Amino acid sequence: MTFKYNSVYINAVSTITGPYESKGPLSKYYDKSYDDLYFGTKTWEQAETKLIEESVDSLLTKIGKTKFDINLLISGDLLNQIVASNYAASSLGIPFLGIYSACASSIEGLIIGANMIEANQIKNCVCSVSSHNNAAEKQFRYPIEYGGPKRKTATFTSTGSASAYLTYNKKGIKIESATVGIVNDNGIKDIFHTGAIMAPAAADTIYRHLNDMKREVGYYDLILTGDLGMIGKEILKEYIEVEYGIKLNNYDDAACMIYDINSQPVYAGASGSACLPLVAYGYIFSKMKKKELHRILLVGTGALMSPTMVNQKLSIPGIAHAISLEVVE
Amino acid sequence: MTFKYNSVYINAVSTITGPYESKGPLSKYYDKSYDDLYFGTKTWEQAETKLIEESVDSLLTKIGKTKFDINLLISGDLLNQIVASNYAASSLGIPFLGIYSACASSIEGLIIGANMIEANQIKNCVCSVSSHNNAAEKQFRYPIEYGGPKRKTATFTSTGSASAYLTYNKKGIKIESATVGIVNDNGIKDIFHTGAIMAPAAADTIYRHLNDMKREVGYYDLILTGDLGMIGKEILKEYIEVEYGIKLNNYDDAACMIYDINSQPVYAGASGSACLPLVAYGYIFSKMKKKELHRILLVGTGALMSPTMVNQKLSIPGIAHAISLEVVE
Repeated sequence: MTFKYNSVYINAVSTITGPYESKGPLSKYYDKSYDDLYFGTKTWEQAETKLIEESVDSLLTKIGKTKFDINLLISGDLLNQIVASNYAASSLGIPFLGIYSACASSIEGLIIGANMIEANQIKNCVCSVSSHNNAAEKQFRYPIEYGGPKRKTATFTSTGSASAYLTYNKKGIKIESATVGIVNDNGIKDIFHTGAIMAPAAADTIYRHLNDMKREVGYYDLILTGDLGMIGKEILKEYIEVEYGIKLNNYDDAACMIYDINSQPVYAGASGSACLPLVAYGYIFSKMKKKELHRILLVGTGALMSPTMVNQKLSIPGIAHAISLEVVE
Repeated sequence: MTFKYNSVYINAVSTITGPYESKGPLSKYYDKSYDDLYFGTKTWEQAETKLIEESVDSLLTKIGKTKFDINLLISGDLLNQIVASNYAASSLGIPFLGIYSACASSIEGLIIGANMIEANQIKNCVCSVSSHNNAAEKQFRYPIEYGGPKRKTATFTSTGSASAYLTYNKKGIKIESATVGIVNDNGIKDIFHTGAIMAPAAADTIYRHLNDMKREVGYYDLILTGDLGMIGKEILKEYIEVEYGIKLNNYDDAACMIYDINSQPVYAGASGSACLPLVAYGYIFSKMKKKELHRILLVGTGALMSPTMVNQKLSIPGIAHAISLEVVE
């Protein structure tokens, strides 16, 4: 399912991160970074809630609006019951739709919001997303204190929240089209190899997007996946060439950009719902504003991993949603 | 945020339940009911996945279509990472948007789908939802085997899945308008009193809906909330009269209808994402088709409860989404 848009723009964005991200190469592109992982709260989950609240507050300040001016908040995160989003929505008091596509949630939110603005059903919305390294590790893998070694295919969940303000005001970045993902299960059960889990879903979504829009891959100056990591990125490039005959030359993966892979302890790179929008809303959008990039395709990638189902020996399905963005001339 | 629709219809629905529901007073309105809680699978979570798969398959059979004819699947459930929906989406292979509003998820799904059909962005969609008593009890409260007694305010999570087929074909039930909920936290921490948690959110949404649509409560032949239960229902009636001056005469709660409260061990009634659509799509829609009811307002109610946050002594926020339905003449 591919949607086309004529009148939806990302007018403003906000990003806020934890300490690992601010030590990475894109640090100057974030609005704010914390030096620890608690941000003045008592728990990692409450810290993640605070990240969303602050990223929305920061966005509202940038655009000079209050919560009463916002028609809709769409948000998701990795915590059980998307609890960071729920509690942030509770303190923000904006009409709220909760979503979940794991680390593809940022793009799912943009798609739902863009559709409603395109149809003039809402005048504006805020699309948020968050992830928190320790909250995610504790929930999905092992407690941090366990200190277990990991394989090289493992990724490091990014800590941060990113929010986007969408309206029909022709300003900023245009949302041009979007493709909704189909869940794909290729039989992988390894929670430390999410790149391999998500790569076929990303390939399918990129292929369907190009096909639906009757485009060659060269139409885009950059195709940027969310969090495949160093190994998953190579799997995607090989898989999409073999399966669909697509050569991804103009391609990168946000997981390989947010940290210094050589000096930071992040294994194959980043992951988490925040990874893609942190890289896109800061670094990539700044290149777009400088007209170094004109057309990009963001491909949010999600491993629909559940510890319950992993314990039941089921394989882990993946999903990918894509959104095409252009600079407004 | 209230949306108005001119061209969205629920053409067909399907319902499938577990054994407790089929022993209740509305048993003849379900398409299919199982006698146990495993449905031929090995675990409750896999059983819940199967419920969604079967309810979508049954819906496709009713409308004479295959998965390739469906533009979009929107689904949510109560399991961590909405895993029943994810795995069902994986086996169904339809472009998928995952959502989470706890037990208000059915209405969130209808709203997102209705907006896209109204705008002609999709031609059709399937909106599904599920809940499973034992899977939910194990995850949110105590293992069933623990056998702990509960207070009278507790509710019994319904087991079932319900799916709706939405198109612009003027047939069946018209979706007329909808109001997106605002998350409300009234300080309650009691996981066995979700009715009290959700009642203020329901009151706020009903009030905003009537206000936005410039309607009196008497416009509707029935206002039906999702799963407040016997006690929560009375709280809503009193709260909405005191706070908003609204007298809910034409009102009922699906949680009080799905079981025989006197003979079945369900405490204050039902709960779960499936509760409202199981009652609405079967019993209520049959009354609409017989023209005994013309206009109804379904109010999905969700307690955004997370065991993690409950353990951190935080209060539990509630949300309610409303959708207005009419019989097509």
